Amino acid sequence: MDSSDSWAIGVDLGGTKIEVALVDAAGNLRQRTRRPTQAHRGPAAVKADLVAAIEALKNGASPLPVGVGVGVAGQIDALHGTVRFSPNLGWHDEPFKEVLQQALGLAVVVTNDVRAATWGEWLHGAGQGCADLICLFVGTGVGGGVVSSGQILSGCNNSGGELGHITIDLNGSPCRCGNRGCLEALAGGWAIAERAQELIAADPGAGASMLEIAGRKLEAVTAKIVGQASRKGDPLALQIIGEATKALIAGAVSLVNAFNPCRLILGGGVIEGLPELVDRVAQGVRAQALKAATEPLQIMLSQLHNDAGVVGAAALAMRSIQKT
Amino acid sequence: MDSSDSWAIGVDLGGTKIEVALVDAAGNLRQRTRRPTQAHRGPAAVKADLVAAIEALKNGASPLPVGVGVGVAGQIDALHGTVRFSPNLGWHDEPFKEVLQQALGLAVVVTNDVRAATWGEWLHGAGQGCADLICLFVGTGVGGGVVSSGQILSGCNNSGGELGHITIDLNGSPCRCGNRGCLEALAGGWAIAERAQELIAADPGAGASMLEIAGRKLEAVTAKIVGQASRKGDPLALQIIGEATKALIAGAVSLVNAFNPCRLILGGGVIEGLPELVDRVAQGVRAQALKAATEPLQIMLSQLHNDAGVVGAAALAMRSIQKT
Repeated sequence: MDSSDSWAIGVDLGGTKIEVALVDAAGNLRQRTRRPTQAHRGPAAVKADLVAAIEALKNGASPLPVGVGVGVAGQIDALHGTVRFSPNLGWHDEPFKEVLQQALGLAVVVTNDVRAATWGEWLHGAGQGCADLICLFVGTGVGGGVVSSGQILSGCNNSGGELGHITIDLNGSPCRCGNRGCLEALAGGWAIAERAQELIAADPGAGASMLEIAGRKLEAVTAKIVGQASRKGDPLALQIIGEATKALIAGAVSLVNAFNPCRLILGGGVIEGLPELVDRVAQGVRAQALKAATEPLQIMLSQLHNDAGVVGAAALAMRSIQKT
Repeated sequence: MDSSDSWAIGVDLGGTKIEVALVDAAGNLRQRTRRPTQAHRGPAAVKADLVAAIEALKNGASPLPVGVGVGVAGQIDALHGTVRFSPNLGWHDEPFKEVLQQALGLAVVVTNDVRAATWGEWLHGAGQGCADLICLFVGTGVGGGVVSSGQILSGCNNSGGELGHITIDLNGSPCRCGNRGCLEALAGGWAIAERAQELIAADPGAGASMLEIAGRKLEAVTAKIVGQASRKGDPLALQIIGEATKALIAGAVSLVNAFNPCRLILGGGVIEGLPELVDRVAQGVRAQALKAATEPLQIMLSQLHNDAGVVGAAALAMRSIQKT
């Protein structure tokens, strides 16, 4: 380690795992640790686990990290440093920033996990040098982040960028948010899995190979299994992925026409499992969006993949803490 | 006139009329003139008419206006000061800014008509003091403008804010842009008129009262006529306006979730003719959009109505010219 370097710790706190990494000013990930999120043990236990993981990395770093950035799967109240609502963690109005700062003796910044990943792709990934971009992450849910004129779009009360909940089919299937026809309800991992389970139940013969991979349990058919089966040419899986791709194109067209980004960066588990979707979405967007908006547009795969969250959270910490 | 005041000339150049106004620094419209756009006589004639109209106002003003702001119904190349494409005027790559500057001896700024109206509402209308807002204008077409963190969103190549072309029904009717299911294709004035004509042709009895207002000419049934008939309780007109309102709500939900504005300002001919739509859209958005995004949200009617364009163009001129 070059002691002239500065460092920060980036954390990606999700419903299933806690990722912690030591990241340098160039966005390189130098050390990392991961542990399961034991959300069932309650917020205090999760915070204690998080502090222990950070302490372990912090103690190995010299000089000390400038601070800690945390991306949380949930809605953040930036003003009070609380986690307002996290369905995955089961948290409501949970004090967070101050608790971590006191336990660690380090400055902490908290943001949404998807916005952290957008910071990562923007500063150190596929979005480098670009002042107008959109990151669209298609995982179990669909989320995103927007950079406009060189600023992350946060909106009126910090809930901007909920790109999974743009309506693309006003008569479409119900979404978990309570509305219907959202991009997430047609192209998110949970929606792909639900649609597959529904179609397999209706025609088990057509779904035989997907059922086989899922150990003959209908409820174990996931978006990942649908993706794998589609790559082997399974007709039902191809149909389901085709529908999701059409939805993804419609959503991308809306975003491109409304925001006119220079780059649209696609990531998340569904895309990482089927990276050929990037080209299919790009073709669809070029055919359907306004010509003026597609002329300068590049559509590309995430460069940091699963590390975008920790790299971005650390970069955000370095930015905001060194500024003050 | 108070000679200590500063002034600018605002122009709204549309396919049917040229509006020119002398506007003071507080956004007050002090003098105005209007003439038809004679697009059939070609770009040179339209520019000459425009210059004559501006000269007439300019000569009555003391002190001289600081400059001229023009909002053009079309796509603007801000770098070259040309009108890249205007379907309403029939212009392609038409030199504009330099021509006006030379003819007038005044500094000129050119922008899109809808963005000019957004400047107007933001600085002097319903958006005053608000750093995150969206203006959605529902006229013959649907257009809009976005202010994010106190900046007008222009995007990568100045075509940001095409809010009429977000997809809200991926299987919906064809839009004039070449795509299908755009907000404009379901809620714009032309779409309302087309839908009415289609339904009246299918059932002339049900459309009798609208046909009557249109002088018994099917092709003369406009969105305005549908709106008027709906206010009188005509069942078919109510159905058509109901469908358009549902589409408008879906589009507004997408915008609110993606951008998280503090205010959503509705304007344009369709809204001005049916101002009760503002409350109906507000109710729908509160029921369907994400709770976090609707909490701080105000949904309101345009304050400057038809003057938003000239007031905004003048304000933009005052801002950009005094800055340099």
